[in-house]
Amino acid sequence: MNLGRLNHIGIATPSIETSIALYRDLLGATRVHAPFDLPAQGVRVCFIDTPNTQIELIEPLSDESPIAGFIAKNPAGGQHHICFEVPDIHVAIAELGAKGARVLGEPRIGAHGTLIVFVHPKDMGGTLVELMETPREGH
Amino acid sequence: MNLGRLNHIGIATPSIETSIALYRDLLGATRVHAPFDLPAQGVRVCFIDTPNTQIELIEPLSDESPIAGFIAKNPAGGQHHICFEVPDIHVAIAELGAKGARVLGEPRIGAHGTLIVFVHPKDMGGTLVELMETPREGH
Repeated sequence: MNLGRLNHIGIATPSIETSIALYRDLLGATRVHAPFDLPAQGVRVCFIDTPNTQIELIEPLSDESPIAGFIAKNPAGGQHHICFEVPDIHVAIAELGAKGARVLGEPRIGAHGTLIVFVHPKDMGGTLVELMETPREGH
Repeated sequence: MNLGRLNHIGIATPSIETSIALYRDLLGATRVHAPFDLPAQGVRVCFIDTPNTQIELIEPLSDESPIAGFIAKNPAGGQHHICFEVPDIHVAIAELGAKGARVLGEPRIGAHGTLIVFVHPKDMGGTLVELMETPREGH
């Protein structure tokens, strides 16, 4: 595969509303999408547009959320993952596997409605990388 | 100000060479720029192009480097900062100050040759945000 477009930066937060206020009032974000729940993943998310990519704010829906541990360690929130687009998630996973890199679990439907998977951060220099099949309608 | 273009994602690493191999061999990065030292900032950096932004790999030049502490806490490396472009750094700093947000130190010349400043992560939801005056020639 070729390194694809950066679809978004994932930022974990204890409060999407508080984070929206920071990006809107301090940094001047003008395109803030409506937050929505992804109960299957235990998170509430909100996308904010920059001119060339998006920020994905992620708030845990409960203490069992996959990001609850991150927030426990980083109570103010912080950078959680980066997401690159790929044309085909199964091809990408096979290619990573052939090179000895692990992915976390099976591909699943992500916040933009296409298949996603996470690369194990231990195989990616400590950074949690999400791969996402390119959404049909831009981002 | 309006939220500007995401110029780059800053990724700290104990070894730029090891990280280049990961982004090139695992994720398929094809445009890897030559690494260079920024001795005034105590770091060596390397930019990798994605179709819409850049990754900035950052390696400490010594134990006194501003990112040596980050690597001590995260020996494998990890996400360090995100950088947005602004038209005028002094206007941006004044606007942040008027809204009660602190910046770290005085503006200085960054890796793309324009003025940069960092917003205090305690005022930005735990995320270290760099603001950079837009480079003249794209990124």
